[in-house]
Amino acid sequence: MKVKRFPENPLITPNDVQPSREDFEVVCVFNAGAIRYQDEILLLLRVAERPKTGDPLIVPVPILNLESSGDIDIFELSREDPEFDFSDTRIVVGRKKAYLTSISHLRLARSKDGRNFTIDTEPAIFPNCATEAYGVEDPRITELDGTYYIVYKSVAPDGITQSLATTKDFKTYEKHGVIFAPENMDAMIFPDKVQGKYVALHRPVPHMIGEPNMWIAYSPDALHWGGHKYLAGVMTGGWESGRIGGGAVPFMTEQGWLEIYHGATPDHKYSLGAMLLDADKPERVIARSAKPILEPEMSYEVDGFVPNVVFTCGVIVDGDKLTIYYGGADTVIAGAELSVAEILSHLKS
Amino acid sequence: MKVKRFPENPLITPNDVQPSREDFEVVCVFNAGAIRYQDEILLLLRVAERPKTGDPLIVPVPILNLESSGDIDIFELSREDPEFDFSDTRIVVGRKKAYLTSISHLRLARSKDGRNFTIDTEPAIFPNCATEAYGVEDPRITELDGTYYIVYKSVAPDGITQSLATTKDFKTYEKHGVIFAPENMDAMIFPDKVQGKYVALHRPVPHMIGEPNMWIAYSPDALHWGGHKYLAGVMTGGWESGRIGGGAVPFMTEQGWLEIYHGATPDHKYSLGAMLLDADKPERVIARSAKPILEPEMSYEVDGFVPNVVFTCGVIVDGDKLTIYYGGADTVIAGAELSVAEILSHLKS
Repeated sequence: MKVKRFPENPLITPNDVQPSREDFEVVCVFNAGAIRYQDEILLLLRVAERPKTGDPLIVPVPILNLESSGDIDIFELSREDPEFDFSDTRIVVGRKKAYLTSISHLRLARSKDGRNFTIDTEPAIFPNCATEAYGVEDPRITELDGTYYIVYKSVAPDGITQSLATTKDFKTYEKHGVIFAPENMDAMIFPDKVQGKYVALHRPVPHMIGEPNMWIAYSPDALHWGGHKYLAGVMTGGWESGRIGGGAVPFMTEQGWLEIYHGATPDHKYSLGAMLLDADKPERVIARSAKPILEPEMSYEVDGFVPNVVFTCGVIVDGDKLTIYYGGADTVIAGAELSVAEILSHLKS
Repeated sequence: MKVKRFPENPLITPNDVQPSREDFEVVCVFNAGAIRYQDEILLLLRVAERPKTGDPLIVPVPILNLESSGDIDIFELSREDPEFDFSDTRIVVGRKKAYLTSISHLRLARSKDGRNFTIDTEPAIFPNCATEAYGVEDPRITELDGTYYIVYKSVAPDGITQSLATTKDFKTYEKHGVIFAPENMDAMIFPDKVQGKYVALHRPVPHMIGEPNMWIAYSPDALHWGGHKYLAGVMTGGWESGRIGGGAVPFMTEQGWLEIYHGATPDHKYSLGAMLLDADKPERVIARSAKPILEPEMSYEVDGFVPNVVFTCGVIVDGDKLTIYYGGADTVIAGAELSVAEILSHLKS
């Protein structure tokens, strides 16, 4: 597979992003939704911030204050507290409760050429309700009949859910609440209705029975979802044996819907693959990648907040040219060009 | 709290139920939906069956054959296989996959007096699709505008989901597929729309963040659900500190919706409590039980397939008289009468 990574990579790093408040630092800018809007490419960045601290024995955890709209409280946990497991840099796991070490919001970046981006100084979508108390993450943007549907991960002590916001102008956003109940990640809406219904991919994370697999669902209005079906699952032994989940919003090709998704090994190496879904019955998987189409290889993919991760939330399609925007090592934004025809030719039924 | 257990208890035991095939035995009959239909009380029983076996070293696991409608294949696992954990009588947990030791279907029982039941010889709802490969369980029945909505747990290797079936006559049933994605239990639809929408309780089981708590959701058509909100959670230290979940279909009282739900301790003692929800905004919890209204005490509640369990999927309301039908020790069906007024008077804001 010919992968033309942008020579400008990484396109956006934490240093390029102004924190939302002075006592915070931006630790990661990654997993961006991507869409063409007017004469620009928009990326809706996930910006993860954490409170600055000088004390290595203190782990500050930022949590939305639900009494005071938009304020974030900072709780300080001691690294020496045996109640907590600090081994994962992203999450602190206690006996009764888990905390995140950063809180994410969504921020717009704009570009004429798709490579040089100007980043807004203000957030576009900020956590502001109980289901978002730990932040908003990993947006996917779909245009359908002039409305832009943004599905994003909403994280809270009560669970990880998928929420919906809409906009028509990328200036004002309307939040519509939770569309997929806990625990759910990696949801996105198709850019066309199929058989009169909105279609979405999502990735439930079961507790007792089942694995982190991809599911499909249908809706009359994009707000209420049903007809949930298992779509595709982890594969034994390879690059996608740990978990899989939807990546970019699927797009239509001559052979059906093409979905760029992620797979991870049990030791958390994240790569990207492709999956072809039936045009009229997208719950039917026609073919998928035997090997990844993009794997962590470059330093900005291998080293970072979470090593060995390439993870996409959005692509831009221009004829045969597919630009994949992706997070590298959960730290930066990068881009790569691939050929749609070449991806299709490498799929395996 | 005055609890009048029926002197006839247990009302239905596995010996009363004819197995669906000769080489199966009924091990449990429990967790029944309850509804008044014409001049009868109907219970929709969960009937759990397992293959008969003479060999104590073999654990047979029954799984629906998806190629041949309605057939159940039997796989034999060896108790000596170190790949599997056999410590729970209900579930065999392997490194990559979990199996159930029984497979459940739903069966009608009919009664004029609510105490003496005649049990159908044929199943009402039988597993017949991929999401039901491990069985159908724990039905809740709601009547709304002449249609009976049956929400039930559908279990499969891909996950535990909540599915919907409808009937108008309890002779033919239409299945509508999965309404709540994995992992989800204890869902039920309210017997009236609120603000023009169907309302349901459900109980997601998160993997990484959150606990097994009760959530509420809304729908325009009972098939597609959204607006998911956290409703009520486990309480530290007491009878409902391990998990909680909806029980019977809620019913309207002068003070709001009354929901009889279950709570369990971390060591799996299941009791019943009550929760009062706002009539016009049922996502608002007005009050709930400080102590259980029904706890496992009798031998048929304490001893059985799973000890120390009282678990309800349905009640019948007749003025102030509330009849709770419940599973005892995951093995038998029992009944108890309580006063609605007395339950309400014991609730704590």
